[in-house]
Amino acid sequence: MAKVLMKGCEAIGEAAVRAGCRNFFGYPITPQTEVPEYLAKRFPEVGGEFVQAESEVASINMLYGGAGVGKRVLTTSSSPGISLMAEGLSYIAACELPIVFVNIVRAGPGLGGILPAQSDYHQATRGIGHGDFKIIVLAPSSVQEAVDLIIEAFDLADYWRNPVMVMGDGMIGQMMEPVEFPEMVNISKLPKKEWAADGCKGRSPNIINSLYLQAEKLNEHNWKLKAKYDEIEKRERRSETWGADDDMDVLVVAYGTMARIVKTALSEFRAAGGRAGLFRPISLWPFPHRELLAAGRKAKRILGVEMSTGQIMDDIRLSVGLNKKVDFFGKTGGVVPTPDDVLEQLHALTPPPKAKAKKKGRSK
Amino acid sequence: MAKVLMKGCEAIGEAAVRAGCRNFFGYPITPQTEVPEYLAKRFPEVGGEFVQAESEVASINMLYGGAGVGKRVLTTSSSPGISLMAEGLSYIAACELPIVFVNIVRAGPGLGGILPAQSDYHQATRGIGHGDFKIIVLAPSSVQEAVDLIIEAFDLADYWRNPVMVMGDGMIGQMMEPVEFPEMVNISKLPKKEWAADGCKGRSPNIINSLYLQAEKLNEHNWKLKAKYDEIEKRERRSETWGADDDMDVLVVAYGTMARIVKTALSEFRAAGGRAGLFRPISLWPFPHRELLAAGRKAKRILGVEMSTGQIMDDIRLSVGLNKKVDFFGKTGGVVPTPDDVLEQLHALTPPPKAKAKKKGRSK
Amino acid sequence: MAKVLMKGCEAIGEAAVRAGCRNFFGYPITPQTEVPEYLAKRFPEVGGEFVQAESEVASINMLYGGAGVGKRVLTTSSSPGISLMAEGLSYIAACELPIVFVNIVRAGPGLGGILPAQSDYHQATRGIGHGDFKIIVLAPSSVQEAVDLIIEAFDLADYWRNPVMVMGDGMIGQMMEPVEFPEMVNISKLPKKEWAADGCKGRSPNIINSLYLQAEKLNEHNWKLKAKYDEIEKRERRSETWGADDDMDVLVVAYGTMARIVKTALSEFRAAGGRAGLFRPISLWPFPHRELLAAGRKAKRILGVEMSTGQIMDDIRLSVGLNKKVDFFGKTGGVVPTPDDVLEQLHALTPPPKAKAKKKGRSK
Amino acid sequence: MAKVLMKGCEAIGEAAVRAGCRNFFGYPITPQTEVPEYLAKRFPEVGGEFVQAESEVASINMLYGGAGVGKRVLTTSSSPGISLMAEGLSYIAACELPIVFVNIVRAGPGLGGILPAQSDYHQATRGIGHGDFKIIVLAPSSVQEAVDLIIEAFDLADYWRNPVMVMGDGMIGQMMEPVEFPEMVNISKLPKKEWAADGCKGRSPNIINSLYLQAEKLNEHNWKLKAKYDEIEKRERRSETWGADDDMDVLVVAYGTMARIVKTALSEFRAAGGRAGLFRPISLWPFPHRELLAAGRKAKRILGVEMSTGQIMDDIRLSVGLNKKVDFFGKTGGVVPTPDDVLEQLHALTPPPKAKAKKKGRSK
Repeated sequence: MAKVLMKGCEAIGEAAVRAGCRNFFGYPITPQTEVPEYLAKRFPEVGGEFVQAESEVASINMLYGGAGVGKRVLTTSSSPGISLMAEGLSYIAACELPIVFVNIVRAGPGLGGILPAQSDYHQATRGIGHGDFKIIVLAPSSVQEAVDLIIEAFDLADYWRNPVMVMGDGMIGQMMEPVEFPEMVNISKLPKKEWAADGCKGRSPNIINSLYLQAEKLNEHNWKLKAKYDEIEKRERRSETWGADDDMDVLVVAYGTMARIVKTALSEFRAAGGRAGLFRPISLWPFPHRELLAAGRKAKRILGVEMSTGQIMDDIRLSVGLNKKVDFFGKTGGVVPTPDDVLEQLHALTPPPKAKAKKKGRSK
Repeated sequence: MAKVLMKGCEAIGEAAVRAGCRNFFGYPITPQTEVPEYLAKRFPEVGGEFVQAESEVASINMLYGGAGVGKRVLTTSSSPGISLMAEGLSYIAACELPIVFVNIVRAGPGLGGILPAQSDYHQATRGIGHGDFKIIVLAPSSVQEAVDLIIEAFDLADYWRNPVMVMGDGMIGQMMEPVEFPEMVNISKLPKKEWAADGCKGRSPNIINSLYLQAEKLNEHNWKLKAKYDEIEKRERRSETWGADDDMDVLVVAYGTMARIVKTALSEFRAAGGRAGLFRPISLWPFPHRELLAAGRKAKRILGVEMSTGQIMDDIRLSVGLNKKVDFFGKTGGVVPTPDDVLEQLHALTPPPKAKAKKKGRSK
Repeated sequence: MAKVLMKGCEAIGEAAVRAGCRNFFGYPITPQTEVPEYLAKRFPEVGGEFVQAESEVASINMLYGGAGVGKRVLTTSSSPGISLMAEGLSYIAACELPIVFVNIVRAGPGLGGILPAQSDYHQATRGIGHGDFKIIVLAPSSVQEAVDLIIEAFDLADYWRNPVMVMGDGMIGQMMEPVEFPEMVNISKLPKKEWAADGCKGRSPNIINSLYLQAEKLNEHNWKLKAKYDEIEKRERRSETWGADDDMDVLVVAYGTMARIVKTALSEFRAAGGRAGLFRPISLWPFPHRELLAAGRKAKRILGVEMSTGQIMDDIRLSVGLNKKVDFFGKTGGVVPTPDDVLEQLHALTPPPKAKAKKKGRSK
Repeated sequence: MAKVLMKGCEAIGEAAVRAGCRNFFGYPITPQTEVPEYLAKRFPEVGGEFVQAESEVASINMLYGGAGVGKRVLTTSSSPGISLMAEGLSYIAACELPIVFVNIVRAGPGLGGILPAQSDYHQATRGIGHGDFKIIVLAPSSVQEAVDLIIEAFDLADYWRNPVMVMGDGMIGQMMEPVEFPEMVNISKLPKKEWAADGCKGRSPNIINSLYLQAEKLNEHNWKLKAKYDEIEKRERRSETWGADDDMDVLVVAYGTMARIVKTALSEFRAAGGRAGLFRPISLWPFPHRELLAAGRKAKRILGVEMSTGQIMDDIRLSVGLNKKVDFFGKTGGVVPTPDDVLEQLHALTPPPKAKAKKKGRSK
């Protein structure tokens, strides 16, 4: 299929269509309103159903219903809207229902601003709701990867019967890039969901429920979930390294569009003789702890870069332990660090040879 | 003042009264409905205002308003209800408003059950809402401590202009214990809140706001918050050790009522010659990382015990690093581990001398 | 097409399908939940969209949206649910949007009960919301008529660009009768809605709006609406007489299923020589004032019968003036007057000759 | 007590305070936001409780609660906000709870405009919610009368255990007039509400409920309510005549601030020799039918004047029957008829002698 030039938000919408999603429930919020806008037009062409709900609280409960009857369902929102879904997400995860949702993160906390940020990392990877549950979190760094991960998200959701969040930011939603879409999934050939409450003629009813009045039953259920999460941690870690050679001075850890900016900075840094590379988690949960530990061993120090005040640092520390030198650089509130900002940090940590030489020269 | 025998939930309510709180907004949910029930009766006696709101979403926004005009405000809820407050909490933290809220944690996820749990640890300590913010979390292990921490919570909230959560569980809410209350705070002598939007006759208006349209302003605001959180991490860590001698075989880490059960198990274990102690975080955020690192150095291994599938383990690992042996034992869904359960774990990790002796004896 | 035996609620659902409605938004409430239940199953077969909203407030606003883009939209509810739609209905009428909604009236006020009633007459015909507006109200007295009126309701709504309510009661919803459906409407051949906000490629945008900041504009708009209502009053009055001969002793006025019960009573009354007939309004608004005036002239007195405490009496008086003898008989709260109850009333007002004879006989 | 110059909305607030109301629940909407604004400041001075709820749906249910425990409670809103209270009002009336609420009517339907109107007459007098119930509606035509009627409303509400609406419009809310307030009611001396659910120590519990599962019970309850409404119709009709001499050419029927404008027009009309008077209903329900019938007998014709498209006409017709000449004049949408507008109508119906003379003169 030929490539088309497309805005990130619209490409996300189209990817959901290709994945066989025909049910969207959501409420508009900047900077992701282009996704529902696109689907409101696109769904009718493919027999899909688009519902603008009364609120995010309503939306997430509609996803609960849609997923419960076996549909591939989607919502998209941005930070404050995601917070309003906290209770519903816990219900959905408890019931092991597959849903896909997109958080085009905006600057927080509170109303904050509408510019890009990555400051929902903690919420996404831990504690987005009450109780012992986990959601899979995927962080694309290009429009094409957003398309690929949306499609994969629907498969992961169905396979693991678990919510999957694709976490982007305003940049990825608004930038235009050439993308290639796969063929439309043949919905009728998707694996049958034997557990769905989709009518029980000729079989015993399926029950979708998160209430367990007997503690022992709920304990059992929670450990069954935990075993699933352990399995996901084993099998679904995704990451990428770039320029992560042996004997680096610095390994930068960054994800999403931030990682692209870091690559630009690293290219320049390396061109100037610097020894530094990138470790990019693609799945934020499960976090690629082992992969980062391995990559980290090859570097003298680690620099986390995030559009936040440092939420990813817990996971970096949990990967590499207390003995590795670890620093953080971030901006927040919608300010996007530039390649020069990152370069400056790299220089501060470990001046590249030429820079050292220059400095020497200067010091004469 | 003389001790009175009182149920935990009621004692929490009375403590809020003593702390000078006169405004409660909430919505009932088991197992903490006794707090609003108590305050609905008690507030009228002291000129307070009790409002049962339409929902938890409404409640938290009413706290936003009440705190904004400088009142000491309270809500209490349980896990799903707390999730519904996620968006509002982010707004309140962004505006640096002091509120106190209580989470009497019930088993989750989803509707779960109404029995005790500690499975909201991640939510409380990280990511309860979107954006870079933190809430102070205090975990009492007795009714008296609940009373003391509620009162301290109001002072901490005002001092740091930050939300403070007191996190208990169904046990602490339902058990009866003798408690002693301090004298009623003289509300008129509480420090004046110069920032409150409480009428601006004769001065320029105070503005309570979390929206920043200029990214640079929001960036600045977020780093200002971060500096406050760093300061809180320095100054407000609270923890306790019990029997944490040098040369322990095991240091158990547990908090809340779970820590009491662990103490019972440890007493027996130690009486039998075992070498084990307890580290009890009282503030879950800021987590007493340094204190645990120090205590952990004296033990061969660490055992985290929590009524969850292991949420506290991140913070234990972040305290002691990757090289310490660390295990977890927990039950969830409302099943409360007994002292015998804990004892069994201790024996499994490091049989006490007598047990070893017995075993030897048996092996003959 | 052959007749099929069908429950009223399901027949109402099928009628909407035949009328080309493919969008339902609603919230369940007894005794009409069988309509959404039916459509939830039926719509997917015909490419329709069924949404269970968060509440009735949400539902009616979704109808606003659906009608605004030109779809034939439906909601069904029962008394308390209809009250929750009051604000939305006023908005929809103000914007001249065609919607069809069904009120399967239950006993009120408040939660009341789930049994049949007609006590929403005033709400339906006057003051269901704020401002100067009217909705067309049709009251079927059999399942077949319900089917016919539902289909007509969609045509009337589109023609007049006005909300149309079909008002039934628990009896009509629950009873089974043989019904005949017309062929499915060819949706693509329905008249194009030139005013709809359905995409404005190649034309200037259509705006759906009820806010007028200039009083003169709103005054004009209201008198334009009034002219439409006057026209509807002229052209859309529907009523039926039965046994309304000249020289009646009593003309009974009743509508809906109550009218059927009255017919049974009248049959017996007339068989015994009594002179009484029925006037049945089919459109409650516009009320057939002229027709009732004419029919009333032929009777000595009028008896209104309604499952209420007498709401229809205003309209009877407005039809026949102050000089006619007018009485009321009704039961409420879910108690359905029996034919014998009605007969007793008739006898009390004007004993039929035989009865008189009998009485005479007896008095000997 | 001395007169003070005060804005209508604020005077309404103060009147509620004087009547012993200490509980307000509401949601802001133009043009009545000055009432809550006033009470938000005033209540704290007298130990009252002011709550801004999440929505009008929430507010009315909070009034339900507040009234249920025996408090004098108030909400104020404007047209769309009142519509959102429809369901709750039906519940409150069903439970026979005394509440007072103010509708400062704005132009409708839908969002309409924020200027004065009287187009909620039908909603107020009939069918504001589902089921057989009535609310008392009082329509002041000056700020002083608003104050008096607010105070009376609380007494009527308590006496009849029924909701009472005070219906004003933007003019009465915004105009400033000198008003005199009575002394503050001694709340502790108000009659004890024996039925209130205010704690049942030492007595059997009181139950506030609108659900009746047995139809016979609900039927009985509804007829009990009907008997109360009949009694209210007998005893609580309020009206005023002005210049309603014998042998009028025209009797104008108008209420609220519209009646004041009519008086100005009538003064001029009468000064010019015209024979016309005013009938002003003060209670809109119960409508003073008998009083209007009597006053109407003295006039050749009747002219209804209302800021609507003619909602009061039903009640005029119901008072005077079909044989009297009845006309209507109104403007709507926020356009307020001027005295000249009314004068023009009077002249059109019956030119005063001088005017006739003038006309003759001109025709020469």
